[in-house]
Amino acid sequence: MGAHDLDASVKRIAADIAAMETRGAAAIADAAADALRQQAKHSDAETPDAFRAELRAAARRLLETRPTAVSLPNALRYVLQRMNGDSVETLRRNTVAGAEEFRTRLDHAQADLGRVGANRLRDGDRIMTHCHSTDVLACVETAREQGKEVSAIVKETRPRNQGRLTAERLVELGVDVTLIVDSAARRYLNDVDHVLVGADAIAADGSVINKIGTSGLAVNARDRGTPIVVAAQTIKLDPDTMTGNLVEIETRDESEVIDRPDREAIGDISVENPAFDVTPPRYVDAIVTERGQFPPESIVALMRELFGEAVADPWIESRPSTEFGGDEQ
Amino acid sequence: MGAHDLDASVKRIAADIAAMETRGAAAIADAAADALRQQAKHSDAETPDAFRAELRAAARRLLETRPTAVSLPNALRYVLQRMNGDSVETLRRNTVAGAEEFRTRLDHAQADLGRVGANRLRDGDRIMTHCHSTDVLACVETAREQGKEVSAIVKETRPRNQGRLTAERLVELGVDVTLIVDSAARRYLNDVDHVLVGADAIAADGSVINKIGTSGLAVNARDRGTPIVVAAQTIKLDPDTMTGNLVEIETRDESEVIDRPDREAIGDISVENPAFDVTPPRYVDAIVTERGQFPPESIVALMRELFGEAVADPWIESRPSTEFGGDEQ
Amino acid sequence: MGAHDLDASVKRIAADIAAMETRGAAAIADAAADALRQQAKHSDAETPDAFRAELRAAARRLLETRPTAVSLPNALRYVLQRMNGDSVETLRRNTVAGAEEFRTRLDHAQADLGRVGANRLRDGDRIMTHCHSTDVLACVETAREQGKEVSAIVKETRPRNQGRLTAERLVELGVDVTLIVDSAARRYLNDVDHVLVGADAIAADGSVINKIGTSGLAVNARDRGTPIVVAAQTIKLDPDTMTGNLVEIETRDESEVIDRPDREAIGDISVENPAFDVTPPRYVDAIVTERGQFPPESIVALMRELFGEAVADPWIESRPSTEFGGDEQ
Amino acid sequence: MGAHDLDASVKRIAADIAAMETRGAAAIADAAADALRQQAKHSDAETPDAFRAELRAAARRLLETRPTAVSLPNALRYVLQRMNGDSVETLRRNTVAGAEEFRTRLDHAQADLGRVGANRLRDGDRIMTHCHSTDVLACVETAREQGKEVSAIVKETRPRNQGRLTAERLVELGVDVTLIVDSAARRYLNDVDHVLVGADAIAADGSVINKIGTSGLAVNARDRGTPIVVAAQTIKLDPDTMTGNLVEIETRDESEVIDRPDREAIGDISVENPAFDVTPPRYVDAIVTERGQFPPESIVALMRELFGEAVADPWIESRPSTEFGGDEQ
Amino acid sequence: MGAHDLDASVKRIAADIAAMETRGAAAIADAAADALRQQAKHSDAETPDAFRAELRAAARRLLETRPTAVSLPNALRYVLQRMNGDSVETLRRNTVAGAEEFRTRLDHAQADLGRVGANRLRDGDRIMTHCHSTDVLACVETAREQGKEVSAIVKETRPRNQGRLTAERLVELGVDVTLIVDSAARRYLNDVDHVLVGADAIAADGSVINKIGTSGLAVNARDRGTPIVVAAQTIKLDPDTMTGNLVEIETRDESEVIDRPDREAIGDISVENPAFDVTPPRYVDAIVTERGQFPPESIVALMRELFGEAVADPWIESRPSTEFGGDEQ
Amino acid sequence: MGAHDLDASVKRIAADIAAMETRGAAAIADAAADALRQQAKHSDAETPDAFRAELRAAARRLLETRPTAVSLPNALRYVLQRMNGDSVETLRRNTVAGAEEFRTRLDHAQADLGRVGANRLRDGDRIMTHCHSTDVLACVETAREQGKEVSAIVKETRPRNQGRLTAERLVELGVDVTLIVDSAARRYLNDVDHVLVGADAIAADGSVINKIGTSGLAVNARDRGTPIVVAAQTIKLDPDTMTGNLVEIETRDESEVIDRPDREAIGDISVENPAFDVTPPRYVDAIVTERGQFPPESIVALMRELFGEAVADPWIESRPSTEFGGDEQ
Repeated sequence: MGAHDLDASVKRIAADIAAMETRGAAAIADAAADALRQQAKHSDAETPDAFRAELRAAARRLLETRPTAVSLPNALRYVLQRMNGDSVETLRRNTVAGAEEFRTRLDHAQADLGRVGANRLRDGDRIMTHCHSTDVLACVETAREQGKEVSAIVKETRPRNQGRLTAERLVELGVDVTLIVDSAARRYLNDVDHVLVGADAIAADGSVINKIGTSGLAVNARDRGTPIVVAAQTIKLDPDTMTGNLVEIETRDESEVIDRPDREAIGDISVENPAFDVTPPRYVDAIVTERGQFPPESIVALMRELFGEAVADPWIESRPSTEFGGDEQ
Repeated sequence: MGAHDLDASVKRIAADIAAMETRGAAAIADAAADALRQQAKHSDAETPDAFRAELRAAARRLLETRPTAVSLPNALRYVLQRMNGDSVETLRRNTVAGAEEFRTRLDHAQADLGRVGANRLRDGDRIMTHCHSTDVLACVETAREQGKEVSAIVKETRPRNQGRLTAERLVELGVDVTLIVDSAARRYLNDVDHVLVGADAIAADGSVINKIGTSGLAVNARDRGTPIVVAAQTIKLDPDTMTGNLVEIETRDESEVIDRPDREAIGDISVENPAFDVTPPRYVDAIVTERGQFPPESIVALMRELFGEAVADPWIESRPSTEFGGDEQ
Repeated sequence: MGAHDLDASVKRIAADIAAMETRGAAAIADAAADALRQQAKHSDAETPDAFRAELRAAARRLLETRPTAVSLPNALRYVLQRMNGDSVETLRRNTVAGAEEFRTRLDHAQADLGRVGANRLRDGDRIMTHCHSTDVLACVETAREQGKEVSAIVKETRPRNQGRLTAERLVELGVDVTLIVDSAARRYLNDVDHVLVGADAIAADGSVINKIGTSGLAVNARDRGTPIVVAAQTIKLDPDTMTGNLVEIETRDESEVIDRPDREAIGDISVENPAFDVTPPRYVDAIVTERGQFPPESIVALMRELFGEAVADPWIESRPSTEFGGDEQ
Repeated sequence: MGAHDLDASVKRIAADIAAMETRGAAAIADAAADALRQQAKHSDAETPDAFRAELRAAARRLLETRPTAVSLPNALRYVLQRMNGDSVETLRRNTVAGAEEFRTRLDHAQADLGRVGANRLRDGDRIMTHCHSTDVLACVETAREQGKEVSAIVKETRPRNQGRLTAERLVELGVDVTLIVDSAARRYLNDVDHVLVGADAIAADGSVINKIGTSGLAVNARDRGTPIVVAAQTIKLDPDTMTGNLVEIETRDESEVIDRPDREAIGDISVENPAFDVTPPRYVDAIVTERGQFPPESIVALMRELFGEAVADPWIESRPSTEFGGDEQ
Repeated sequence: MGAHDLDASVKRIAADIAAMETRGAAAIADAAADALRQQAKHSDAETPDAFRAELRAAARRLLETRPTAVSLPNALRYVLQRMNGDSVETLRRNTVAGAEEFRTRLDHAQADLGRVGANRLRDGDRIMTHCHSTDVLACVETAREQGKEVSAIVKETRPRNQGRLTAERLVELGVDVTLIVDSAARRYLNDVDHVLVGADAIAADGSVINKIGTSGLAVNARDRGTPIVVAAQTIKLDPDTMTGNLVEIETRDESEVIDRPDREAIGDISVENPAFDVTPPRYVDAIVTERGQFPPESIVALMRELFGEAVADPWIESRPSTEFGGDEQ
Repeated sequence: MGAHDLDASVKRIAADIAAMETRGAAAIADAAADALRQQAKHSDAETPDAFRAELRAAARRLLETRPTAVSLPNALRYVLQRMNGDSVETLRRNTVAGAEEFRTRLDHAQADLGRVGANRLRDGDRIMTHCHSTDVLACVETAREQGKEVSAIVKETRPRNQGRLTAERLVELGVDVTLIVDSAARRYLNDVDHVLVGADAIAADGSVINKIGTSGLAVNARDRGTPIVVAAQTIKLDPDTMTGNLVEIETRDESEVIDRPDREAIGDISVENPAFDVTPPRYVDAIVTERGQFPPESIVALMRELFGEAVADPWIESRPSTEFGGDEQ
């Protein structure tokens, strides 16, 4: 291959992601890591610099297929962060190992996370949930497998009522479920042992981005002395935030809040439908990941360990200085 | 008339209330005060004791027509509290005056309250509302009449979506309205100058009983530094709480939260639908009434002024001791 | 009698108090009110001024018998506060009525207070207590008479372990009691519906002076969202604090903390044993009295109602100005 | 005199106030009360209604001389609030008594307040001050007269450095003074026993309006556990706020912040110089007045007692209803 | 030796621990690290896999001798965490070095910790202590050796009064000691520069497990603005909590709280005697260890550095994936 | 060269620093790192131990030139922390690489930090500043270069009015500036999106040492729900604090607060002028560095990464134990 020539498998995987043949955060991340692994394995680069340039080029190709999916750059960062060494062979070995490690971890992540979260639950505990999170369900499922009784207050989570889906899954797990409207949450916080929610993203300053309503719930949980635990695989960590970038908050369709006839009956009003909100770390007791649990204020250390220091994007050639001592750290 | 004989008008008014011919908190209170006025006017009691006994008997008759409506005992307390004097004539005059005062006040209450609340609003202010309260609307209406621009973030207020009714009324008042789901409230608290809500009842310890979701909103408003103002006519004060009695929190039908088919699709779950919650005084900045505004911690003083010291119900003959000096206090 | 001549009964009652024949806060207060009543009844003063001067002189005589008992000046203030009128006869009648009212109220105070406090308790509630208070016991006793199940976490209350006495009385009332050391309180606050304590004194700024450890418990109760209720008869209100006077905090014998041999075994240490501490009003949800319940911030209004505006002591002839309009207010 | 004819002394006093012959909050209030007294004394009204109308007319005349001075309407409200009775003679007597009472109280107010504030101070206490307040100085002066050692941390209070004036007066009182810049306050809060400040106005919701910087200091004092006490004569209470009216915050000249040459050297900037800020009641421990000390949440009770229920201005003929029972309350 | 054959010294050390010949947290940890060192030194494993398996087997043997002592698994984790390399010789060298490092660190730990803690103290500081901790004493001892004056408020720490032992040791160090009952702590918090306590365990979420009463003290210290510092060697960190496991709270004998005769005199009561409580990280300012001081929220980073990522126990063969790149990280 | 012989360039650089030829935190740090680089490059040490001893000696020589400048030891720590290896050549290569890395990082630090801080700002944001910080300006400058509109409330920052300098620089950057006195800050906090300040030092417990007034501002910002962001290059981290050492707070000349004539006019007062204060981490939302943003509670992890575990100073020969496994970690 010539300089920066991409392996055929990289092109194919990128095409599949772009064409949405490969879908879902985990599947995309897995495919991206595999692509870098293939590139590293088959590279015929003759110098370390050439090898690194090739891998960065592969990463850029993959990245441009779906610029907004957070799991994709996380997979690339994870692997490139491990592309260390001062010979092509060492680089190749470490890169391949990093990609395989990422994929195996990813494969076990939800189960591992579930064990960590389940360990925090005691027999007889009652949780409160908001929205729908398979990471939260994994914690409860493992707790049930450990033989623990668990009951749940489930918030319906307007406007899309994902709480009903959560209720259904919890019932299947043998959990005693009480469904309430979102506004009723505070009334039940004193009867609850944990608020247990998922996350859409976690920022370097320890903020938790999750379904709208999470932050207001967390403030009330703190006020009532109820611990709030966030269950989130590390794929939800957003390394871009290490450099101060903000997580974009999606605004969804207004018709989720009120349908057209009802709205027109009211008159000329605006409707706003932000999908997520931001919970500051001081209202969160712990973030449960497949790597263990962390206070939100220390999640940045995990972020750096997994994805590198993100001052520069690893798929862009950094300024020479940061190459110094690369293999010694 | 013999001892404790009730005036015909008392019997008729009581019958109308019992038969729900007279309905609505204000109408019932007005009728009850009028009944005591008639009784006082037409009484042929010959001693102060007999007069008082007669009036108490009238009050009891009225009270038993609708034992749970809070405005009814408030009207009775207000009038009996003013039944002072050491001659039948003085008693009669004061009682009639008390009843007339109550009725005139009641007639002007919402407008008076509206003026007080409007004075707190500045031109260009944005408020956030929860549920539907005509006392809140009276504040906004007066502010609009004062020429002030007002905009509003209106929470839909699940499960019955009374926020939509509020939105409609505010639009009619020329207010710029933005409708949101309840969970989105915290996100908008920093853009809002006041949280302005009504009350179903106010307790002697300064607690505000209002539509479920109020307390959680108030905790978040305090956390964000946004003042929370409660608009409530004094008829909402619950003097029973002066003696430690709790305000009963109604639980409403579960089908308001989820209809039967959706619920059955989920499986075997419980649904709870408390209608109100209790906001402690430390989260409320002011209670706006037709008598002026008050910090919630001092509302008990207003309660005592209007309705008397409620250790004993005024329609029950108190123990002799409390008669001492009755006309001097 | 000459000017300021004291009635024989005043002299006798004062002597009994001074000789500790009359003992206990309630007994002393009752005797003092009776003395003023006798003085008023038998006074042959010919002018309102002379009558007032006589009563003030009687009050001073009584006061100097036990300058530190708070119930004594409270009884005097209560009666003198009601010494209104512009003729000797009116003055006499009002003063006698005030004294009788005070004594009857005092007689019923604990039972009345118990009803108020009991009304705050629901069937099945669990309380936490600190130290020993008959006012607290009155609340629980009435709740039990109302047929409510009550359980209690009882703090032992070092150094004198009055919690054991509380435990014993509660067991007699059919309460399920759990005894803990003081340091364990926070661990149980989430399982408790109310912290219910008495008071040694209540100040005009809403502060509660009670057994050492109360303030630290209250701060933790607020942090855990557990309401803290203080049960205290109005005889515990300290009107002196209306003029900024501080409540003196007694320091008790060091041997209550550690006996001499143990202390000497340790070496040359200091021991401090303050008997009370001061809980600011923002940590107290309600003060339950025989006159109803009050937020601590409004207790000053009750103090003024019962004992008058205390800028000048009522047993000292005030400057002329404050006599204006005396009988109209 | 004809209907609403004003007494000559009213006209003269009004003219003196208008011409600024009578100046200063206390002098104006004193003169206004005296004017009403003269009007009442010399009135030849033949009916109670005529008498009341006359007095109201006198009040209006006085009021229009200086519509923004808060002490003026307070004096008028105080006297008119006491204009009770059902005969001209009673009305006259009560009005004159009310005016005299007001004036005597005013005469003693600062000394009375000083005693209350001094009682809160213990020997050896250290206070922190902000801006300059003669009410604060009165507290310290009395404490010094009581033989107490007092030291003070004095904030300079930019932009006008009134702290230096405070420092000078405190030195004269024998107080050990340390002057600091405003920003250094937090650093000293742990070494201070009380923050002691004055007030420009106190609102019905318990808010304290005082020199800019007070609210930020109060928030820090609460955070450090240092009590904050406000010394303010009742003439500073603003009864207008009972009906929700806001206290206008004066913006002062920008040149107090930076002089023209320095400003022009910086470039094109804005400068803002608000003179006061608003401290919410939850950050204030006590308000010390000449009538005693009050938690800020109960100051509204004192306001109503002194100045009446302010839903309608007492110099405007109220709607008939509120006349009912006027002499019985 | 055959596969997984254990070195004789491992067997002997394990036997000594099992037989309680080796006792005390530090002694056990030291012996366990020595055992792994011996095993590594004498291993004749021929492949890296065999070496690792041998060491894991040795660890399991040691672990089963005392399954509940936290220092034992910490020693094993520390050494196995350093068992890196891709040849037997590298593995051996690193393992031996890790064991030696652990033992030397352990040997100096308390002195090193004492220096860190002493540096936080200034000359003249006053501390408050709860219970008895040699780590706390090490801080004070070093401060004294640095020539600093230190005084102490010592809580007696019911039910076992370990505060008396602390008082005795502090007196020996030349510290001015004041002994108080636990309930009196809040009263002294404003006079104290630091609350300085030890820990029984520290969890990955930053929680501090210490003698019952610590959490209530910490909440009050935060409320008063007094820093709370925890002195704890890293051997107190509980890596098991990284995977969400809870620290078991011991309940001790009820007779420590009240002896049988006193209890029977009270009647049929329960007594509860939990030995420890859990202080959330938000109430702790710093954790002082022999490795330096840390905010509690970052202690998990130290835990991971010392003991590895604890998703799987290092003495269990992990799934193949986690072996990838083992020697490159 | 003999043992510990210093390279000529080290001597020259040390002399230049001592003579203040080399001035400014960055210049000193840069020179110190260069000196170690020269020493490493030219060393003719024959053993790793000798090499290390030489470098430590060079560091000590440099250190003694300016014992109080924090950037100097940070440069030395950074380089010595990277002096790893088991041969002289490896040691030399790593040391040189570490020095070069440090210098390149330093060269880009403010620009890198500016990018991180700018990313947190959105178009149209308003910031509040205190004192003058080039790191803060770098954030704003980058945000402006990104095309974002930014406005600023600038506190004047008594006593030296550095806010005016900040205002001038911001105007040059096209920022809309409003200048206020320090006391007015709270009034504007609700209109501000971020408080953005620099730091003089950051301690291991997450505390921020900055210009006097920062901590009081931060407490108010938290109370109003406004995020507070600290911009500080890593050269401001103080690794000494990892071992509990306190940051010395400079007291500056009293004449900055008040000039002599004004002071003498007041009388005999003290003046205090502390230059800095300490903001606890719980009031800070994020620390922005050139390495990314961090919650203050995790800054210790960055400190350890950059400067090593600081239990012993790296220029002092540590006890043998800590040499174990030096090259494997």
